[in-house]
Amino acid sequence: MAITINCDIGEGYGLYTFGNDERIMPFISIANVACGFHASDPSVMHATVRLALEHGVKVGAHPSLPDRQGFGRREMQMEREELRDLLIYQVGALKGFLEAAGAPLNHIKPHGALFGMTSKYEHCAEAAADAAAVFGVPLIGQAGTMHDTVYSRRGLPWWPEFYADLEYDRDCNLIITREHEPYEPEAAARRTLRAIEDGRVTSVEGVDVPIRVETVCIHSDTPGIDAVAPVLRQALAPHMA
Amino acid sequence: MAITINCDIGEGYGLYTFGNDERIMPFISIANVACGFHASDPSVMHATVRLALEHGVKVGAHPSLPDRQGFGRREMQMEREELRDLLIYQVGALKGFLEAAGAPLNHIKPHGALFGMTSKYEHCAEAAADAAAVFGVPLIGQAGTMHDTVYSRRGLPWWPEFYADLEYDRDCNLIITREHEPYEPEAAARRTLRAIEDGRVTSVEGVDVPIRVETVCIHSDTPGIDAVAPVLRQALAPHMA
Amino acid sequence: MAITINCDIGEGYGLYTFGNDERIMPFISIANVACGFHASDPSVMHATVRLALEHGVKVGAHPSLPDRQGFGRREMQMEREELRDLLIYQVGALKGFLEAAGAPLNHIKPHGALFGMTSKYEHCAEAAADAAAVFGVPLIGQAGTMHDTVYSRRGLPWWPEFYADLEYDRDCNLIITREHEPYEPEAAARRTLRAIEDGRVTSVEGVDVPIRVETVCIHSDTPGIDAVAPVLRQALAPHMA
Amino acid sequence: MAITINCDIGEGYGLYTFGNDERIMPFISIANVACGFHASDPSVMHATVRLALEHGVKVGAHPSLPDRQGFGRREMQMEREELRDLLIYQVGALKGFLEAAGAPLNHIKPHGALFGMTSKYEHCAEAAADAAAVFGVPLIGQAGTMHDTVYSRRGLPWWPEFYADLEYDRDCNLIITREHEPYEPEAAARRTLRAIEDGRVTSVEGVDVPIRVETVCIHSDTPGIDAVAPVLRQALAPHMA
Repeated sequence: MAITINCDIGEGYGLYTFGNDERIMPFISIANVACGFHASDPSVMHATVRLALEHGVKVGAHPSLPDRQGFGRREMQMEREELRDLLIYQVGALKGFLEAAGAPLNHIKPHGALFGMTSKYEHCAEAAADAAAVFGVPLIGQAGTMHDTVYSRRGLPWWPEFYADLEYDRDCNLIITREHEPYEPEAAARRTLRAIEDGRVTSVEGVDVPIRVETVCIHSDTPGIDAVAPVLRQALAPHMA
Repeated sequence: MAITINCDIGEGYGLYTFGNDERIMPFISIANVACGFHASDPSVMHATVRLALEHGVKVGAHPSLPDRQGFGRREMQMEREELRDLLIYQVGALKGFLEAAGAPLNHIKPHGALFGMTSKYEHCAEAAADAAAVFGVPLIGQAGTMHDTVYSRRGLPWWPEFYADLEYDRDCNLIITREHEPYEPEAAARRTLRAIEDGRVTSVEGVDVPIRVETVCIHSDTPGIDAVAPVLRQALAPHMA
Repeated sequence: MAITINCDIGEGYGLYTFGNDERIMPFISIANVACGFHASDPSVMHATVRLALEHGVKVGAHPSLPDRQGFGRREMQMEREELRDLLIYQVGALKGFLEAAGAPLNHIKPHGALFGMTSKYEHCAEAAADAAAVFGVPLIGQAGTMHDTVYSRRGLPWWPEFYADLEYDRDCNLIITREHEPYEPEAAARRTLRAIEDGRVTSVEGVDVPIRVETVCIHSDTPGIDAVAPVLRQALAPHMA
Repeated sequence: MAITINCDIGEGYGLYTFGNDERIMPFISIANVACGFHASDPSVMHATVRLALEHGVKVGAHPSLPDRQGFGRREMQMEREELRDLLIYQVGALKGFLEAAGAPLNHIKPHGALFGMTSKYEHCAEAAADAAAVFGVPLIGQAGTMHDTVYSRRGLPWWPEFYADLEYDRDCNLIITREHEPYEPEAAARRTLRAIEDGRVTSVEGVDVPIRVETVCIHSDTPGIDAVAPVLRQALAPHMA
């Protein structure tokens, strides 16, 4: 199994910029491109798809709840069918720009609160699976959650993810709100390699927890990521396709 | 050249209904499906695509300016590139639902003020052509306008349209705001056949003007359309594929 | 305590119509006017405020979660401060049209899922109370919920509501999803009078539950409301100001 | 006539930041606060109103066309009534936050393309005047345009504006798209004082053109504004209230 490095990109909007797509691009292999519901707009999407492809980065969709003000980070009550349709709409829109560029869609990774909802609620995981089945691409998810349960039951390909720049607790939950010191690059790379090779990560409580990793996520706005990204990329090179 | 009958459909939104898609469907052969910018939403789009396909009606995209409050009827200043990207986004989104249904995209017809802008402004017609070229489908347009100039120059397939339920003036402009008496069905059918077969329509001033017709447009909310549509469909049958 | 009859109005949007404001207006005394987040737009709001005032109906704000597609009926995770600000924004916008008409704001009634959230979650009730305190007007709420707890604790004026056209269960919860037969007008009036005068309503299980009523809500789209509204208005007249 | 220094502020949105409100605040006397249509949201508006008032800066409304993607810079066809209602909605919303803070509304300045439309089209200037008349506050405008014609004819108070950080041509039009060298602070201050005291500005063509000034506009994102703003403020102090 070849490992990929994924990153959320294309999250500017109109005059607003966000993150640092140009700088992170050389270090990732697949991109999660925002689809206009939590961030981005058609012009930003087109430019982002082109930028990714110029760097040889494969393009996946990063669809969201319809919540621009909250950046897709506020949970919203959704039925399976309406959620499925929201996803098909956004992924289809992104495919339009891929069609313009002559490139295929690579994967789907739900964004923010929707990622959380698909990991917790069965009907949301089913909706994500419904959309992925339409487009015939893998989903990015989290091991040990509804992703596992639903995607695996349906026989859909999906990639469990490891966050190279976030901490885990003993239940393998991400610690996402904590401010933290910039990572020391070699330590981050070692920690990630251990997760890939040994299937283990040390939690914030200091205990080892098992983890399954097929893709590694980094964020372009993590403090110190400029130093971490190249070291990580080099360390993972033997595991990448 | 086979003639088609087209109609704008799927223009409800959330709880709001609009037009009468169910009733018009048996009488049209191709549908212009709203893409969520002037009307519709992902759930409505999915249901509309299914309804059309159930009736054997081919599905085209009906993209718009981003103006839900104004139903896409207010002109907006747009650069060619941003307009092209708006179109790719919306058409791509619709293709998502077609992909779910296993059906191809049939055509693109810009909606409302955008239809007018593409008929008047060269850079807008170019933007529509750019989007149509991405998806490899014909545009619906109006003979004698920038549609002719730009689409023909670029060698793109496009279908000039005749409005079976609207009047024309001596310059072949549509009279779109006038309230009018319901059409007498046989007269509407005769008038449409004459436009197709002889390339002529009698203007509101009473003079004959030349016209080129490859598709005939009807509206589900025109007064008396329930009587007109079946008669028209029957009259046009010999010209349809 | 004078009783009022309230109704949600002004829920059209752009070309879309909704409910039947003109028909219900003669039978209500206070109106909950949509503020552009679940329905309505500035033009509809202006026209609605004028229509209400022409009928001598007092105007309150009917603010919502930002969810037009879902008509404000899908719960959304919100912090107290962002919810308070959403409410201030919408109520302020409505006050603009009241200022244009020279009329005061009468009250605030949160809409749909937001009504439910303020009845269930303390921080949401606090946010509604924060907004009401800014504008110095009463809230409409439901007895026996967080409305009671929070609004009463803060000493804010608020009016518990009785739904003349919906059923209650034994815990005094509204049965809002059930399709039901049109109400028999005299029965609806008797039931409402009993709630006001005796503080009791018979639940769907057939048991009497206590209820406190300072305003009576009707809906313009309830089946049979045209028959119910005039009878109800006449029956309540002795209790109204 | 006391001179004011005005600046557009509060143009962030959700997670997105824009301009540099904190830094410019000490140097301005009145603020044009975005109202959620081209930029901002209820949370940003509330925070911005508070920030301005903390600095003793008076708060005006900066309403826009409904065009977040285009930052309100794309002209849109609008009728007088719908434009008036858009303005009342936005100004009313801002007044909600002023009501929360116990401060009055100071003025209205239309944003971006809407500023241009009100300066060029009579019905748009009338719409702005309609809204200003509702709230009883002055408008900011440009001398020699429809602002002069319409606002003056209606006897509405309004303040012609001078851009301290932009150039003018011989017809007193702003040169807004040109990239330019950072202003030398003393030169910018002298130029502004001359416009106020002598009613003259030297155009890019090198000729003197007459100008009328009651408020001076600066932008927080003009190159070199950090150096210009304090010098300008000090130079204008004798003319300020």
